[in-house]
Amino acid sequence: MIDEKKAIEASAVMGLLGDLKDRVDALESRLDTEVADIRAQLPAERAAIVLFSGDLDKVLAAFIIATGAATIGLETTVFFTFWGLTVLKRKRVLKGKNLMERMMAVMTPETSRGLDPSKMAYFGAGAAMLRQMMKAKDVTSLEDMIELSRECGVRFVACEMSMDLMGVSQDELRSDADLGGVATFLGEAVNARLALFI
Amino acid sequence: MIDEKKAIEASAVMGLLGDLKDRVDALESRLDTEVADIRAQLPAERAAIVLFSGDLDKVLAAFIIATGAATIGLETTVFFTFWGLTVLKRKRVLKGKNLMERMMAVMTPETSRGLDPSKMAYFGAGAAMLRQMMKAKDVTSLEDMIELSRECGVRFVACEMSMDLMGVSQDELRSDADLGGVATFLGEAVNARLALFI
Amino acid sequence: MIDEKKAIEASAVMGLLGDLKDRVDALESRLDTEVADIRAQLPAERAAIVLFSGDLDKVLAAFIIATGAATIGLETTVFFTFWGLTVLKRKRVLKGKNLMERMMAVMTPETSRGLDPSKMAYFGAGAAMLRQMMKAKDVTSLEDMIELSRECGVRFVACEMSMDLMGVSQDELRSDADLGGVATFLGEAVNARLALFI
Repeated sequence: MIDEKKAIEASAVMGLLGDLKDRVDALESRLDTEVADIRAQLPAERAAIVLFSGDLDKVLAAFIIATGAATIGLETTVFFTFWGLTVLKRKRVLKGKNLMERMMAVMTPETSRGLDPSKMAYFGAGAAMLRQMMKAKDVTSLEDMIELSRECGVRFVACEMSMDLMGVSQDELRSDADLGGVATFLGEAVNARLALFI
Repeated sequence: MIDEKKAIEASAVMGLLGDLKDRVDALESRLDTEVADIRAQLPAERAAIVLFSGDLDKVLAAFIIATGAATIGLETTVFFTFWGLTVLKRKRVLKGKNLMERMMAVMTPETSRGLDPSKMAYFGAGAAMLRQMMKAKDVTSLEDMIELSRECGVRFVACEMSMDLMGVSQDELRSDADLGGVATFLGEAVNARLALFI
Repeated sequence: MIDEKKAIEASAVMGLLGDLKDRVDALESRLDTEVADIRAQLPAERAAIVLFSGDLDKVLAAFIIATGAATIGLETTVFFTFWGLTVLKRKRVLKGKNLMERMMAVMTPETSRGLDPSKMAYFGAGAAMLRQMMKAKDVTSLEDMIELSRECGVRFVACEMSMDLMGVSQDELRSDADLGGVATFLGEAVNARLALFI
């Protein structure tokens, strides 16, 4: 009788053990799935900045933020669109452009050195004043900050639609700028820790 | 004696089993709670754009981003505030407005067709030039892009405070624009994957 | 023979129990680690706004958003940089400034009361009109909104680099503004629920 009781107990124990094992199996697999799914939705260590503006002061702000973001370890991308495209220009090419494109080329600065601030442009005096103030205070110049940001790993993407619209060809731009569209920006921005429109 | 030992073993086993069961119970319930709590804090598949600007070029950029965001599956809302409110206007109504509101109505464009770019406005020549350039390059016009964004599911929200401030009545706006305030924007933006101020 | 079988069963049960216990131990510790790690990557209940602009209308928008964010429970910080620095100014000090700094001081408004809107500045007429419209519609004035935002717990940070660049001294600013740099902004923005550049 004792043996029978033990036998019953043993089979009950095995049943309980089997149930528990199933639950532990399920927990392990659920933890794997949930963690993987949640991690995929966490913001990545990434920053994405749309530089729409071609105003010297705003461009400066964009590069200060981009370089800072790269410095603290974020994979940082700047998308140069509309007026911001000028920042990537290394020269002005008129050959091969139609009338409208030539007008656009002449009406926008040849390179970043020709950018005016958003306020107090005064036909270039504002830019000269801002640059002189920066020099006096030992603030890195825009052109040096652009190079510094690249050294810190900031990626440059030129907006293809803006290039097409304004008739800017790739050989007018820095050779280290990638080309991309709104999908490129969104791909970076959607799970970035920081996305700004400047 | 052997039986007694077995009995002790059996009760020890039941004790261990009971402990383990409690821990598995706790794990299951903790996993449920933690996962639900964490999921509630994850960014939602949502984008929120404040369109403050009424500059043709910035409005275009906003719609390109909004339409792109909706296309990749984000529930996208554009909040039209201050100068951006003009984009939602389908006509200008002067009747019923006080002097200040009339001045405001006359000084802002009647509809999106009257928007000037942020640079090179030249009393409308800049807008004509930009629109012509877009046409030449087969870029969707702003008005078509507005419709396209709606077809892609982008939600429009007109800022009630701006409407009140500028004396813009709801019948001056597109009928598919919801009304809302800063709380509406924050409700969308706070756990969105993308929030921009344009 | 029966006893031997039981003995084998008992040791098998203890083995299975031991295995399960190890797996439950591992699950508990993995859940702790994963949850802690994931929580650290979730966006915090925080908002960070760069106020770059010194345009009355944009400054108003920034304070409406900042106050709203603080009201719904986000720890909110506004970083006043470049033209936005003027919002923090409580007086203009010329003494101790060099020529360039004096020019800058004279060319920027003395306090927030001197800010012009981004459109229709008309040498101050636009600001007067906007402020009068706000008053007529019982919209809180900018100055009251600044105080309100502070009462709601919004933190003010003045950009040190902008102060240095423009020669603005700390005693020209509100005494409740902290000083900080791009690292301060990024520290807040990187895991904030909302980050905007205005």
